Formats: sequence, C-alpha cells, structure tokens
Amino acid sequence: MEVKVLRNILEANDALAGENRRLFDRHGVTVLNLMSSPGAGKTTLLERTLDALKGELGMGVIEGDIATRYDADRIGRHGVPVLQINTGGACHLDANMVRHALAEFPLEGMRLLFIENVGNLVCPADFALGEDAKVTVLSVAEGDDKPEKYPAMFQASAAAVINKIDLLPYTDFNLAAATRRALELNPRLAVFPLSCRTMEGFEGWLGWVRGMVRDRFA
Amino acid sequence: MEVKVLRNILEANDALAGENRRLFDRHGVTVLNLMSSPGAGKTTLLERTLDALKGELGMGVIEGDIATRYDADRIGRHGVPVLQINTGGACHLDANMVRHALAEFPLEGMRLLFIENVGNLVCPADFALGEDAKVTVLSVAEGDDKPEKYPAMFQASAAAVINKIDLLPYTDFNLAAATRRALELNPRLAVFPLSCRTMEGFEGWLGWVRGMVRDRFA
Repeated sequence: MEVKVLRNILEANDALAGENRRLFDRHGVTVLNLMSSPGAGKTTLLERTLDALKGELGMGVIEGDIATRYDADRIGRHGVPVLQINTGGACHLDANMVRHALAEFPLEGMRLLFIENVGNLVCPADFALGEDAKVTVLSVAEGDDKPEKYPAMFQASAAAVINKIDLLPYTDFNLAAATRRALELNPRLAVFPLSCRTMEGFEGWLGWVRGMVRDRFA
Repeated sequence: MEVKVLRNILEANDALAGENRRLFDRHGVTVLNLMSSPGAGKTTLLERTLDALKGELGMGVIEGDIATRYDADRIGRHGVPVLQINTGGACHLDANMVRHALAEFPLEGMRLLFIENVGNLVCPADFALGEDAKVTVLSVAEGDDKPEKYPAMFQASAAAVINKIDLLPYTDFNLAAATRRALELNPRLAVFPLSCRTMEGFEGWLGWVRGMVRDRFA
C-alpha cells in the first residue's frame, strides 16, 4: 500500500514538474536544482557563483529549508531576487511548492534560476521540480564512500561538486576514489572538485554553468 | 490525503517500536539510536566507543544504510556482533526493519545495542525504533546554523555529539553558538563536543553512555 501511495505521489509530482518546466521554457530560463547533505556548502557555492556571474546574466534563487530564512538572507545580500520556501518539516522540495513560489516570483529577464533544495542526500533525488539539471554537492568532510552509500543522488545528477577541498589535508578523503565511485554510478556525471574558500577549481564549475545556459538557446 | 497516510504510517510504526521495546526490556539491553547527516562521523564514533567499552559490557550494533555493507564491515573488525540493514532506497530505518533484523540477532548477554540510522538529518527523527534514547551527531564541517535549520532532530534527541572539533581551526564553526542554538531547541539536551581523531572530549560522551546503561538497572 505504502509503495502504491508513493508511486501516486511521484506521478502527481512529475505532472506538476512538467507544468513548471513549460513556464521556465516560456521565459527561457535555465534551472539548476542544487542538492546535498546539510552543511555541504550549497549556499556558499551559490553566493560565489552569483558574485562571479552577476555581470553576465540575470539570475534568481529559490531557497528550500525546513525552517528559518537564514539562507535567503545570505543570498539577498548578493543583489539577486530570492524567495524562501519553508517546508515546515518536509524533507525535500516538490514541484507543487515550487509552483506556488513561482506565482510570486517574476521570471522576466531571468536567464538562470537556482533552486537550493532541503539538505538531504536521499529524498530530493526522487522529486523533479521542472529543472534542466540536478547538481549534487558533496563535502570532503563527509567521506569518499558517500557516492556508493547514497547512489540515487549521483545517478540523478548531471554534475557533482566535491566541495571544501581546502580540508583535504585534514581528512582522509581520497579524491580520486570518490570521483571514480561517482563515475561508476553515472558515467556522464561532470565532477568539479573545488573550494569556495580558496576558489581553487571554481572556474571549471563556472564553465559548466555557463554552458548549461548557453546550450538552452543553442 | 498525504498527511493522513503519513499519520497512519507513523502510528503503525509506533506500535511496532513498542514491541521492539518490550523485547529490549526482556533482555535488559539499553538501545541508542544514532542519527546524523551523511558523513558526520556516526560510524567512527561507534568504532571508538566500542573499543573503549568492550572490556566493560556486552555490545552489539545494527547498521542502517541505503546500500552497501561498508559500515558493518568496519564495525565487524571491532569484535562485536553486527547486522547490516539495507533499506534499498528508504531514507530512514523504521521499527519494522529493526524487528525483522532482531529475529536473526541474538540479544542474549547484550547490555548495549547501538542502531546506526541512515545518514539523514530530517526523516529519522520521526520514526521510533524502540530505543531508550536518540543521539544526534553534528559535524563541525556542517556549520553552526544546523540545529535551527533541522530542529526536529535536536528536539527528539537526548544527546548531541558535535564531532570533528579537530577541524575547528579550518572552519568558521562557532561552537558556543551551535551549543546555544541546540539548547534553545531542547534545554535537556546533553551536548558533547569531541574529536574521534584526537579523542579530545571523548570521556564526556563515554560517561553519558555508561550512565544510560547504568540507569536502566537503577
């Protein structure tokens, strides 16, 4: 019974994600759905990315959190429109939450919309929001066994950011092993090891984001 | 509809957790349910705790993971009985999974059973397993805003371990702020900042675990 209910929920979600997708298409906006464990650094990655690209193209951010509007406040300081969704306990964003948020979030002039999901390396992988691509962020502090232990995330994503590489000397994280494990799960995954603190590796990630926006209009 | 289904699921789970609890009571075994984000260090905390206490009392471990038996293999090297549950996608352990595991996991002679939940700072908080207490592990690398952003975990727990304090010099984690935020959510929470690498702060945690076992027989 539980399985059937879940299937119905996912089918209903996919239908609403399709509606969101058509709205994004009409406005020509590229949408990236950022997912990770709590504290892997999604918000900091966003802050650095907004600062790097804000002279180039119109951007916006939808922040998903169970509680608080800390992340929206952080993003708001970077001069881009931001909208906070509080799920009130739910462990992931779904297409309906995003649809409601979009009703009060003008897409005019926007070329790139980031949706930062609830910090959770499991559930968000199953819920399409209407995005062009999912991005998984993994922090070096979490350990290099995480791709195999949380495979759905890496299988569902087009890109994976391995964040906080400035912590590599203080952990036993094996970057080559983590990358290999992620690529075994998803050979088409674009993997970007980087640090939002030192900015090492950041240009590769920016190039991928720029390519996602460009390809939509190709 | 979704809410009603969830309530039915939680009620059914609570009933099964009560059955597990009666089984634990009959065997006089204290049960701790360890929860955290992926990679916060639950397994390493367990390895150090088993090594410290294995001369004192009989212990066992149930490992919950979506996939792989890496964690059970790690625990098995410490000479205690261990059983791996793979949830096959589910984002938390539930009482029924534990009940099935217990059918093949003898509790005779065991005084302390650790159940390591799936790495997820949201969903496991809602699902009782029959444990005496929940313990939340938070890593310094995750950021000091996590208690407020994931309040249910901290509200449901009797203890919180703030792990990886050896990384404090390399992060902007404010230990006093994180502790204050956790205690605002749950004034009865026992908070243990520690490092499983340097073992700083570990004795406080061990004292709490010993107290939990002792109090069951008081």
